[in-house]
Amino acid sequence: MSEVDPPYLLRPVGIVHSQLKRREDCPHQGQEGAPEAWLEIDADFADGLDGIAPGTEVILVTWFHEARRNVLRVHPRGNPETPLCGVFATRSPNRPNPIGLHRLEVLEIREERWLRVRPLEALDGTPVLDIKPVLPGSAGDF
Amino acid sequence: MSEVDPPYLLRPVGIVHSQLKRREDCPHQGQEGAPEAWLEIDADFADGLDGIAPGTEVILVTWFHEARRNVLRVHPRGNPETPLCGVFATRSPNRPNPIGLHRLEVLEIREERWLRVRPLEALDGTPVLDIKPVLPGSAGDF
Repeated sequence: MSEVDPPYLLRPVGIVHSQLKRREDCPHQGQEGAPEAWLEIDADFADGLDGIAPGTEVILVTWFHEARRNVLRVHPRGNPETPLCGVFATRSPNRPNPIGLHRLEVLEIREERWLRVRPLEALDGTPVLDIKPVLPGSAGDF
Repeated sequence: MSEVDPPYLLRPVGIVHSQLKRREDCPHQGQEGAPEAWLEIDADFADGLDGIAPGTEVILVTWFHEARRNVLRVHPRGNPETPLCGVFATRSPNRPNPIGLHRLEVLEIREERWLRVRPLEALDGTPVLDIKPVLPGSAGDF
């Protein structure tokens, strides 16, 4: 190990600021009416944003900090009438590693570390783990 | 905290078995000629696979265990002639949280916890963090 941190320990690089203050207010997916939000990237990591501009489509990687990690089967979309299903076949936030993926557009950048984005269904205060560009190409377009 | 683990500590749920044994053998992206691979999901997490079948398209989430985490700017695609760029504008494995996203198809499932998949550019021995279904819909298709 050449790292200071132990393996498998995540370092949040920023935080979500959103009007979504309660889990029950969050749409299941960004495309289901999710609002704009601001991503505040910590000053220590702002250099990593070089090359991202308004109009860039990115995959935001978050940590669902309120998720339950000891769950392996869920009712899809929280509907108790839907049969239980393995978490890896769903997008439930409840899963062993509650990593969230959100495809969104960067609308504006301020002070080189604040990003206005849309749409984002994540809760206010959600930790940001990573940002990746959407790759060109149809089938692998994620 | 209702969790046993400290926050932000990942738990690998499986491992990649691949013919790709060295970093220099790995394509930059799955679509660039990456081979089939096997995912071995730990028995403790196999119940989470319920609902995944051959033909399912998934996003595999991995941990780039050989990545450098203290890097904020890289030469895209490792080409020293390309100007330095922020890691969040690239898919470089070197980044603060070296989380990898791989879109692939499940080809076969054995013993309810071995998945043959294609294409996968990740190195043999790469830890698996999560599996998510690809969501239907064109623009948000990831």
